[in-house]
Amino acid sequence: MYKFEDDSLMLHTDLYQINMLQTYWQNGMDQRKAVFESYFRSIPFENGFALFAGLERILNYINNLKFTQSDLDYLRSLEIYPEEFLTYLENMEFNLTIRSMREGELCFADEPLIQVEGPLGQCQLVETAILNMLNYQTLIATKAARLKSVVDEDDSLAEFGSRRAQETAAAIWGSRAAYIGGFDSTSNVRAGKLFGIPVSGTHAHSLVQAYRDEYEAFTAYAKTHKNVVFLVDTYDTLRSGIPTAIKVAKEQGDKINFIGVRIDSGDMAYQSKRIREQLDEAGFPDARIIASNDLDEKTILNLRMQGAKINDWGVGTKLITAYDQPALGAVYKLVSIENSKGELVPTMKISSNAAKISTPGIKQVWRITRNRDGKSEGDYVALIEERPDLEESLFMFHPVHTYINKTVVDFTARPLLTEVWKDGKCVYDLPSVDEIRDYAAHNISALWDEYKRILNPEQYPVDLSQNLYDEKMRSIKDIRDKIDNHVLEIEEELLKEGE
Amino acid sequence: MYKFEDDSLMLHTDLYQINMLQTYWQNGMDQRKAVFESYFRSIPFENGFALFAGLERILNYINNLKFTQSDLDYLRSLEIYPEEFLTYLENMEFNLTIRSMREGELCFADEPLIQVEGPLGQCQLVETAILNMLNYQTLIATKAARLKSVVDEDDSLAEFGSRRAQETAAAIWGSRAAYIGGFDSTSNVRAGKLFGIPVSGTHAHSLVQAYRDEYEAFTAYAKTHKNVVFLVDTYDTLRSGIPTAIKVAKEQGDKINFIGVRIDSGDMAYQSKRIREQLDEAGFPDARIIASNDLDEKTILNLRMQGAKINDWGVGTKLITAYDQPALGAVYKLVSIENSKGELVPTMKISSNAAKISTPGIKQVWRITRNRDGKSEGDYVALIEERPDLEESLFMFHPVHTYINKTVVDFTARPLLTEVWKDGKCVYDLPSVDEIRDYAAHNISALWDEYKRILNPEQYPVDLSQNLYDEKMRSIKDIRDKIDNHVLEIEEELLKEGE
Repeated sequence: MYKFEDDSLMLHTDLYQINMLQTYWQNGMDQRKAVFESYFRSIPFENGFALFAGLERILNYINNLKFTQSDLDYLRSLEIYPEEFLTYLENMEFNLTIRSMREGELCFADEPLIQVEGPLGQCQLVETAILNMLNYQTLIATKAARLKSVVDEDDSLAEFGSRRAQETAAAIWGSRAAYIGGFDSTSNVRAGKLFGIPVSGTHAHSLVQAYRDEYEAFTAYAKTHKNVVFLVDTYDTLRSGIPTAIKVAKEQGDKINFIGVRIDSGDMAYQSKRIREQLDEAGFPDARIIASNDLDEKTILNLRMQGAKINDWGVGTKLITAYDQPALGAVYKLVSIENSKGELVPTMKISSNAAKISTPGIKQVWRITRNRDGKSEGDYVALIEERPDLEESLFMFHPVHTYINKTVVDFTARPLLTEVWKDGKCVYDLPSVDEIRDYAAHNISALWDEYKRILNPEQYPVDLSQNLYDEKMRSIKDIRDKIDNHVLEIEEELLKEGE
Repeated sequence: MYKFEDDSLMLHTDLYQINMLQTYWQNGMDQRKAVFESYFRSIPFENGFALFAGLERILNYINNLKFTQSDLDYLRSLEIYPEEFLTYLENMEFNLTIRSMREGELCFADEPLIQVEGPLGQCQLVETAILNMLNYQTLIATKAARLKSVVDEDDSLAEFGSRRAQETAAAIWGSRAAYIGGFDSTSNVRAGKLFGIPVSGTHAHSLVQAYRDEYEAFTAYAKTHKNVVFLVDTYDTLRSGIPTAIKVAKEQGDKINFIGVRIDSGDMAYQSKRIREQLDEAGFPDARIIASNDLDEKTILNLRMQGAKINDWGVGTKLITAYDQPALGAVYKLVSIENSKGELVPTMKISSNAAKISTPGIKQVWRITRNRDGKSEGDYVALIEERPDLEESLFMFHPVHTYINKTVVDFTARPLLTEVWKDGKCVYDLPSVDEIRDYAAHNISALWDEYKRILNPEQYPVDLSQNLYDEKMRSIKDIRDKIDNHVLEIEEELLKEGE
């Protein structure tokens, strides 16, 4: 049905990236070494931290970069590119170097998550896809961690959102990110297949409707499955669903593993308490009550506050779309570029929106913890050549409100950006998704509780080193001076024209 | 990097679908004829209408349904399915029949958008993917139509959202849906390649940063491209960006097609007015001003109200994620099922949430317009065998507040559900995306203005035929009676147990 075959993600980029590449190429600048950094300007959901995810997906994409014949045919059909440029694209060999945080790392605003180094044109081409992948998985992993923080340790969380996800890729990569953030399973079978994460699910209302009778439907289901959960709200939860589920569970006895019941509508607090009573009275004190129905961290908190007897939570729409903030706004900015003399020089973007000013220079992010108890002191963003880990004491100050500062001694500084791709090749042992999930849980548990509240958490410090701060101020001044000179020049030219 | 090859969307489904299929299969019910209907319960964004989209994608998915070897290997690895069941899946031939609205059709709450008929088990397997695809594209097409409604007829709208989209599939299918809803182009090159929709884009801030000088960057860009837009807010829009853009445009003269300038930050209303003055004074009254920066229909309306001189709008995050309501909640409900005697009987789901009660029976949706002026009277949902188009007059009443009613005469009734797939084969000439876009525009223009306000629109009537209404009431009573009998039975059993 498509005009061209969908055989590559190479063109999963914005047109302007290719247009800029053409300009660089025609001006002999495409091979100049450049460094781009990706970061977001605020943590999603006003959470106290975000959970970095998406790297494996990104490296898989980078590994398959190649302009296919259908890509080239399409670009040719636009009639805006010279044939030599298309030949150049056809022969392009990607040799990027990438430094990145690990998946499952806690991350914060205004610190580089991923750093892409290589020929200017190549770095530019991969911006769109990297952001697309990084933004979504980091967003969902963070949302999942919020949900995980409001349920009991023994409760399980199942991701149910495929039907409401924003198309097919979100359904599966969102499942993976949710698992990293602490979910226990997904309903999406393809996600289970691709990522090896546990799948869960039993039956829908349609099973009951197909049999036109709850007793028959539950019995048929029980006879064909070992682990059994009955969905009890097709007709009338308390008067029909639960008594029927109990009846079938008793009849089947040891022939099945009666796990529990699921409710998907009605007042969950009230119903779950009545259901708990009925199940207990019937001799099923271990049967679990599973709830689903537009749940999010706020409804779960409220249900738990009301003493709802819910053991497991199925979360769909609100998780898979990150409903209350469906986009993370990570950007990808040029921080260093080779000049005509072959020197790498820092560069930045100024803007009348203060938040949109970038910080120039190639950086490393150091996580500072005090040795006394391993608790976090904050992150310290420094120029890549700096070595705060070798210092005796560290002066840490707020990058805007500089009067907020402290001197840290007896600390450990751990660098967060690791080289994962070097000159076009993977140099990183990709951890399994279970390892990533454990790593995330470990990182979250080591964080002060004050940063983990889902409402109004304390702000985690992300500070700049003195050198980086000075470099930024110097760059701003240089650009301002240059603009002032330009304005003078332009005014002089206008005067001349007027003469 | 993946455990299993990503070679099929067959497992892009919820695990419970496969579990139910297994139950049906073991009970000899998998081949029973069933009809499922998909509909949503409220229009997104509180808009007055939604724009149906996603059908081509769904049919492409249906066309490729097949359990691949890696799918079967994965299911086997779960150790929950008997081998004979896997063999049954391996040999499954899909022979569904699908009736659907056309893409670009206006649609409303509580009316079937798509109807899937076939063997019960098969209908069940495709639910998740159909909803996943239908929900997203319909959501984005509707959002795009809202945006289109607030810009001037001469303004153009560009979709810019790939980097913030929820993963790769949303980026491209969202671009397509946006185009259907009235957008003029996308920045995503892959979407252009796959769907043949126009692509647009010029350069980013990084081009200016790479040259470290706006004049050099603009000149280099102008010398390598025919149609030229300069991004003018890298350093200082009014003092540097605009004067430099004008200077380069004058120098290049006829050698380029100077289309205009783009701003991506700052106060758009103020800046655009100053930019307009500068461009006009410099002799470029036709140069366009393009704005982007977290725009949505509300910001655009406000900017226009303030007299902003913006000609073209680049919309990213807020469109591609449908930021203010990132999910459409279409569901897929069993409405008719073959009983053990081989008769198709209507079925429904009851719920303590009134909105979650479904309407039983196989339906057709008729759009009623009056012949006098072609204006819409509402939609009339009837049983599939009814023929309101042959009636002289039609009694239309609100399906909940039945006292709201009217009798329509001299009308045209147009059926909205068309057979697109028959016994496993496509029987529909898929329109091009441009035809769909035109069809959507035509449908929107024919709608009363009162339904088109982006805030508090009048509610478009979606009524049930008398027969369908009676059928629904009868079904509710039947189920209620059955539950009451069940409760009696269960109580009697409990009494006996107590004896």
